[in-house]
Order: sequence, then structure tokens, then C-alpha cells
Amino acid sequence: MDVFLTAAARSLHRSVLDEAAPSARWLCLGDDGTLRDESSGEELDIRTATPEVAWMTTDLVDGGPMRPFFGLVTRSSSLRWLQSSAAGFDAPVFGELVRRGVRLTASHIAGPPIADFVLRAALDHLQDADAWRAAAARHEWDPHELVEMGSTRWLVIGLGTIGREVAVRARAFGAHVTGVRRSPVGDEPVDAMARPDEVPGLLPESHVVVLATPANAGTVHLVDEDFLRHMRADAVLVNVGRGALVDEGALLPALDEGQLARAVLDVTETEPLPADDPLWDHPKVVVTPHSSALGDGRRRRAAEAFVENVRRYVGGEPLLHEVTVDDIDA
Amino acid sequence: MDVFLTAAARSLHRSVLDEAAPSARWLCLGDDGTLRDESSGEELDIRTATPEVAWMTTDLVDGGPMRPFFGLVTRSSSLRWLQSSAAGFDAPVFGELVRRGVRLTASHIAGPPIADFVLRAALDHLQDADAWRAAAARHEWDPHELVEMGSTRWLVIGLGTIGREVAVRARAFGAHVTGVRRSPVGDEPVDAMARPDEVPGLLPESHVVVLATPANAGTVHLVDEDFLRHMRADAVLVNVGRGALVDEGALLPALDEGQLARAVLDVTETEPLPADDPLWDHPKVVVTPHSSALGDGRRRRAAEAFVENVRRYVGGEPLLHEVTVDDIDA
Repeated sequence: MDVFLTAAARSLHRSVLDEAAPSARWLCLGDDGTLRDESSGEELDIRTATPEVAWMTTDLVDGGPMRPFFGLVTRSSSLRWLQSSAAGFDAPVFGELVRRGVRLTASHIAGPPIADFVLRAALDHLQDADAWRAAAARHEWDPHELVEMGSTRWLVIGLGTIGREVAVRARAFGAHVTGVRRSPVGDEPVDAMARPDEVPGLLPESHVVVLATPANAGTVHLVDEDFLRHMRADAVLVNVGRGALVDEGALLPALDEGQLARAVLDVTETEPLPADDPLWDHPKVVVTPHSSALGDGRRRRAAEAFVENVRRYVGGEPLLHEVTVDDIDA
Repeated sequence: MDVFLTAAARSLHRSVLDEAAPSARWLCLGDDGTLRDESSGEELDIRTATPEVAWMTTDLVDGGPMRPFFGLVTRSSSLRWLQSSAAGFDAPVFGELVRRGVRLTASHIAGPPIADFVLRAALDHLQDADAWRAAAARHEWDPHELVEMGSTRWLVIGLGTIGREVAVRARAFGAHVTGVRRSPVGDEPVDAMARPDEVPGLLPESHVVVLATPANAGTVHLVDEDFLRHMRADAVLVNVGRGALVDEGALLPALDEGQLARAVLDVTETEPLPADDPLWDHPKVVVTPHSSALGDGRRRRAAEAFVENVRRYVGGEPLLHEVTVDDIDA
């Protein structure tokens, strides 16, 4: 079994990979785009390499050899399985692969840092930390009351790995958490579950609204004029899903009219957000550069998830988090 | 039983107070300093009033009639019991009352908002949210990695109401929490307990160090040169106890030398912090104006705590959180 991955990922996770697939041949892509068979040390022609498995690690998108990696992946007729280290699969390349018969698995490893991010964003809003920062810049001692988490109600839209991690944390503060999911499993760590069609009725009592759901045909512009009209004037909207979930053209007027108090957007409709976008300077908007998943534990968890699936692949067992054509079209 | 309190507190909590002490006479102090017997509506001479019980509520310090309140409390020879809505009793007036034989009870009601504050402060540091805010101000999309809470170790010095609430929240994120207390009770919600003399040995592995202990002769300048020398270069110190716990003269050089990464001070040695104090502008210091206890649930919890003690007082049972001369001298 030939496994295609970056030299950086191979080097970082050598021992766990060897344990999971002792007889694999590792085709390692260097930062300079050269491909090597690790066992022989021989340089391979990337145009004729025939990997069976490919592992797409996050170093590829963090300045790694992304272009040669996807070149081989999209060209290869030998490829049987690609594991991504991301949860989302809305980039067109994934749809093409799945339709071509390549198995695709996603990784749901970003829950902890994204949930940490959401909690910081909510606490920052509830405590109006902006006012403390502004007063400190003026050297002014100006106390104000803060809203306790324990008195808030949360609406978490999407109860996958991320939504669950958010719910566990928020409830430890005493918040009341309602989770929204099309098909509840029954073990969600929340106070209540609701269906997507119940969201408008729940918004008027929700102080914190979290978007942690994938973008697909059914969720694009989920947050539109109508959604925003149902929100509380003191509510904060936190989007850690995809930029497409929010109609930014509807969001800014809603903030201006006081239909909600604040929006924290770690994802935007256009990324990177253009320098002249009005979101940057809006006093009720906080933009962060799609960073909530960039936790320092993500590489370790990505390796654990790949190792588990390699074990399953070698043993002929079902793979975890396999993405189907139906998921792509959902 | 004559109970002395502000008219504002009486009005806000009338029904629960009546339930706890149906036969009490309520001596209500208005914002203008006039005292009235609520049942007769009669104005009383505050110089000759003889309350048995006094309830010191937080509205007194938030712009209420503090001076006439303490005037009567310190003058009165009829006073048997004063309940404060604060946890601290380091103000000299409390020592004088206790030595005079007046029973003093404190209220431990600030745990939830203070713990919320500590978690925000720690998350803000671990995620380096300052960098996101600065980049957004420049309209720059500049992602960075964040430290996940789950990979951090916390040292919480003081495991009273506040320390416990901090520990419960931090552990929901997966953090490892060690609590420090002279006399552990055994039910502390932490991963490990340690004695005060073990602190220097624990500092080199602690990413978040929280001060949530009272100021007394044994804890003044607990954080001194030696303490700071044992800290991690990436650690954040969060002080929600008392300003006197930290030697600010030692803190600034330690920050400059990189002995720790950041200090978040909700309390300072001098309060309000003077406008020319170097803490305001230090790039590694965050000052907030002694606000972490100002949660929007504090009045409700203060009333619940007083009502419970009134019930006990009327029934001759031991009062909760009674402060003794030994506590004052500790």
C-alpha cells in the first residue's frame, strides 16, 4: 500500500504511522515539491506516482506544497482513499473525487479549539470587555456590571463535534443550551434539542447564537433578514461554521437597527476578507481570520484520526467520517 | 427585631425578606439619607435609631447612602449582627465591629461572575486575541495558532467559592487544575490539591495562575520576586483576590524580563488605579476596574444569602460565613 503525504507530516508522526501500517510504502512530498520513496530514499517522478492512499494534512494549507499535492491527487487513477484533516468538504475538488469513486473521509478534530474560541467570544461580549479595554487605554477606572453566563440561554445550530464541545463548556458555566440538529442521536450534551424549523421560535429567548453547521444547499444564508428579525437586541451571533451561512448584506443593516447586539465572524463570505470590506470597522462586528480551528493540538488529533482509519482500511472495516455523494449534494 | 437596610434593598427583596422574618420591623435608609420605619411610614432620627440587625448591600457602594449607613452601624450600641454582601472583610471598620462584639457575616456570592471573568481573561491570553484585534484594526487577515485550554495546567490559589467556580469551568475545557488551600475540605472540584508551601514547585508547570485568596498578614505580597522567578515564560497571572496579594514593584520588572507573559489585574494595590500608574500602559498588563464581582445575579444571590442567615438568626442556629477575631487577625 503506497501512502502519499507530506514529508513534514510523515516526519512528525512516524512512529504512530508505522505502528498502524507496518508494511506501507511512504511517498513523501517535500516542501520543494519533490517526491521521495522513504524506504529507498529514491526520488520519484510525481507525474507517474501511483499512491493508493493520500493523507491531506493541515501543513499543506499552512504554507506547505499544496499545489503539487492536489496535482497528484486529482490526476491519480490509482488513488482509492483520501483522508482530509478538515471537517468541511465544500471545496469542489472533494465532490469531483467522490464522484470519481475515490473514498473520502473527513476529520472532526477541531472541536476543542473552536469551542474555546466560541466561549471567549461569548464571554467577551457578555462582559463588555471592549469597554474595559477602551477605559484602560484612557487610564480611566470605570467599572460596569457584567452579564453572568449562568443567566444566559444558548442556541447552538449544528450539534456535531464542535457544537457538542461548545455545549459542554457553556453548561459548566450554568448556561442553558439548546442544540439544533436535523437528526438528533439522543446523546447530545445539551439541556434541550430542537429541529431546524423551531429556530425562529427559539431566537427571541437566545442570548448567544452559535453557527456550527456545514455549508450546503440547505444552509446557505441560513442567517437572513427573517432570522435576524427574530433575534434579541442583546444577542451575540458567533459564526464558526462557514461564511456562506450568513447573508452579510442582511447582517449589517440588522446590526445598525439594533436587531442584535454583536456578530463575531471567524468565517466570512469572501476569505481572506478584502481590506475595504465594511465588516472590518463596524463597531458591532468582530472579524477573526478563520483561525478558531488552529489549535495547538490539531496535528496530534489529525494523526490519531488518520491512524485509526488506516487501521480500519487495512482491516477492511468501515472508515470513520466517510463522505458520500449524498453528503456532498445535501 | 429591627433590621436596618437601604430602602432600595428592602424594595427589591420585599417578599423574600417578609417570608424569612415576618415579625421584623424594617428601618429603611433612603438615597437622601432619611430613615423611615416602613410599617408606620414615620421618619426616624438616624442618630437615635436602635437596629438589632444591619444588612450591608452592594447598592451602598454603587453610589448609595454609604456614609449615613456606616455612621449608624459604627455608632449603634444596639447592633448585634451585620451581614455584608461582600466576601472580603479587610476594611478596618469590620475589625472594629467584631472586636466590639457585633457579629459579622460575609457573603460568598461572587463566585460565578468572578469565575466567568477569569475564564475570559485566560482564553483571551491563550488565544492571543490582542493580535486578532490589532490585525482587524489594520484590516489585515492574519491567522495565528491558538493554545487550547485542554493542554493547559492551572494553579488556583484559594479554593473558596471563587476558586471552586473557576476550577469547574476550566476543567470543562479539559484543563488540569491544581488547587491550593491551607486546609483542604476534601470535596474540592480539582485534579489535585496542594499546600501553600508547594506553590513554588508547581509554578514551573502552571500556564494559568489564579489568585482567589483573601488578603491578610500571611498573603500580602504573596506574589513577590521569588514567586515570579518560578513562573513559566508563557504563563498568565490573573488576580481577582486583592491588590495587596501582588507586589506591583516586583511584577513590572518580571514582565519586562519575560519571567511571565501577562498579568490580568482586576484588583490593584491602590484603587482606583491612579491615571499616571505605569500598569495602565504596560503591554503585558491588563487592568480592569475591580469589576469581576459585578455580575447581574449578585443582588439576587446576596438576598438569598441574607434570607438564609435571617432564618438562622431568628431560629438561634449558627450563622453561615461568620467572621471571627481570628479571621480578622489571620
